[in-house]
Amino acid sequence: MKKHNFSAGPSILPTEVFEKASQAVIELEGTGLSILEMSHRSKEFVAIMERARALALELAGLTGKGYQALFLQGGASLHFYASALNLLERKGAYIDTGTWAHKAEVEAQFVGATEVIASSRENGYRNIPKEYVLPKDADYLHITTNNTIYGTEYFEYPKVSVPLVADMSSDIFSKEMPFDDFGLIYAGAQKNIGAVGTTLIIVCEDILGKVSHKIPTHLDYQVHIKNESMTNTPPTFAVYTCLLTMEWLKKQGGVAAIEVKNKEKARLLYEEVDRNPLFKGYADVKDRSRMNVVFNLVDESLSDRFNALWTEAGISGIKGHRSVGGYRASIYNALPIESVQLLIEVMQHFEKTV
Amino acid sequence: MKKHNFSAGPSILPTEVFEKASQAVIELEGTGLSILEMSHRSKEFVAIMERARALALELAGLTGKGYQALFLQGGASLHFYASALNLLERKGAYIDTGTWAHKAEVEAQFVGATEVIASSRENGYRNIPKEYVLPKDADYLHITTNNTIYGTEYFEYPKVSVPLVADMSSDIFSKEMPFDDFGLIYAGAQKNIGAVGTTLIIVCEDILGKVSHKIPTHLDYQVHIKNESMTNTPPTFAVYTCLLTMEWLKKQGGVAAIEVKNKEKARLLYEEVDRNPLFKGYADVKDRSRMNVVFNLVDESLSDRFNALWTEAGISGIKGHRSVGGYRASIYNALPIESVQLLIEVMQHFEKTV
Repeated sequence: MKKHNFSAGPSILPTEVFEKASQAVIELEGTGLSILEMSHRSKEFVAIMERARALALELAGLTGKGYQALFLQGGASLHFYASALNLLERKGAYIDTGTWAHKAEVEAQFVGATEVIASSRENGYRNIPKEYVLPKDADYLHITTNNTIYGTEYFEYPKVSVPLVADMSSDIFSKEMPFDDFGLIYAGAQKNIGAVGTTLIIVCEDILGKVSHKIPTHLDYQVHIKNESMTNTPPTFAVYTCLLTMEWLKKQGGVAAIEVKNKEKARLLYEEVDRNPLFKGYADVKDRSRMNVVFNLVDESLSDRFNALWTEAGISGIKGHRSVGGYRASIYNALPIESVQLLIEVMQHFEKTV
Repeated sequence: MKKHNFSAGPSILPTEVFEKASQAVIELEGTGLSILEMSHRSKEFVAIMERARALALELAGLTGKGYQALFLQGGASLHFYASALNLLERKGAYIDTGTWAHKAEVEAQFVGATEVIASSRENGYRNIPKEYVLPKDADYLHITTNNTIYGTEYFEYPKVSVPLVADMSSDIFSKEMPFDDFGLIYAGAQKNIGAVGTTLIIVCEDILGKVSHKIPTHLDYQVHIKNESMTNTPPTFAVYTCLLTMEWLKKQGGVAAIEVKNKEKARLLYEEVDRNPLFKGYADVKDRSRMNVVFNLVDESLSDRFNALWTEAGISGIKGHRSVGGYRASIYNALPIESVQLLIEVMQHFEKTV
């Protein structure tokens, strides 16, 4: 029996994506070839890449606005470095909202000067800092729009005069966003885009080509744009799963429609966390993430009993990150509301039996 | 009907790999989860990564010899740069045996000084140069052990006093090799290792940590070794296909047994290329690759007629690279001898009907 998977990433994808991807590993319909053995230069795969790139821009409402979408390798972590390499000339400004935001800034230091202009580190990253002053020599401002470990999320974005750069790995395509306020967006696929193994880059072409240092070929976004995301062999299967997942999202009604569902899932679960006297939420209420619901037991000594209950119910992947402890229910686009309802039932049953 | 796939890469994998991988996309046996939605920190995936790393060393005969195997992202192309970043202090020496060998040297120039100590460029890369002088300040010597575009392959390797570095993307695990003569091996998975999306790195730990410049975290092989190839989320599905493919190879009898089969496939096909008056081989006979058989029509005006014949026979992927023209039959480990026999029959039928 399939589990109810609340994993933070790699994470659940739509059932039809699993089914179509599974079939394509045997044979991509009508080609006589497995997707795994197909040349990336074949007309079939070139069409997959082109549709995936176009659909990413379409879902973000960026078609025809001077943006390009790329599906590269390396994970968001490599693009902590690559994003700075493509943009940092004088100084990179960073807002520190957690481990991943901090790591992004550390990798930029391999390129040049950085400045952390706001941080919520001192209060355990429970909120999104709203006050900051952008340095005059900043080339860009980098934010992490959703912080999986602590369960915080931006709902309003900085308005700045320099390109806004965002790691959107864990909330991209989960809601409407002013995508055209951003100069560069990067996101590991493995939450709302598709299977792990590719990183979506969405970049406004105008902001590239302004640094004076040399950029190695495969870290240079301008090179990848020129080569239509095929400078070297792309991770074909991962890109195909992204196309399938984005097609599913489009059929759901796109980001506006999925936002309604995501709000309802988050509302139900936070309501239970707040109501149930055995639990307490981690993040400040106003900055609570709709993607990662982080909560703890009031009495940690009850954890074995709660763990036994949700395991028995077929729930998987809700253990919290080691730095926060407790629980993290990741409720990305593909997680059905029924899984959230089941988790709530388990929490209520736990309350009655303790 | 499945095609006979001679694609240069991504390329054919064993049928049982397609079947097991397809099933795992629905559910990895006994876990209740698709391999695509499974946390890389789950005990099941950690075991997959550990088995894959150990099996790569086992197939190379390097277990317990101070080597580490990693499954990273980026493709061999990113590791043109990363390999130099980890090893180049004074000078990188390169032997230029084709487009990919040349590109490796170009990326190393982003790190420091390089010297091409031998090249077969002038004769269209038809052979492997055997004469060279290693500069006294070389940190390493880099070679490309098999050159897919021209169909040349090393069968004896340079003996040098510095670490030997090799891009083995297209002939690794195809034959017995003195793997412990190499300091660093890297290979895109998509020929003999598994599905595209991961790059196998095999490195002797002793040669790392000797450069004075800083290395960004996700390009630093020592960091990846310390983190057991999980510094960031690995491309889990691609790694799983590598494990399945390497397990298949082990069941075949490992590299010694597959070498016998590969020799026979290559012998049969080159015999036909040499015998059939309509065709001529591209590479010098002594350096002919057993992985990529590159040949041309003596009379190029017959190409439409030959193309129609092999297409009709269900053969795919034998068009040559645009820089050489003609045909390239890639006959990697997983290609059955029956596909080679079919291609030979088509060539013979073509001879009779022209």
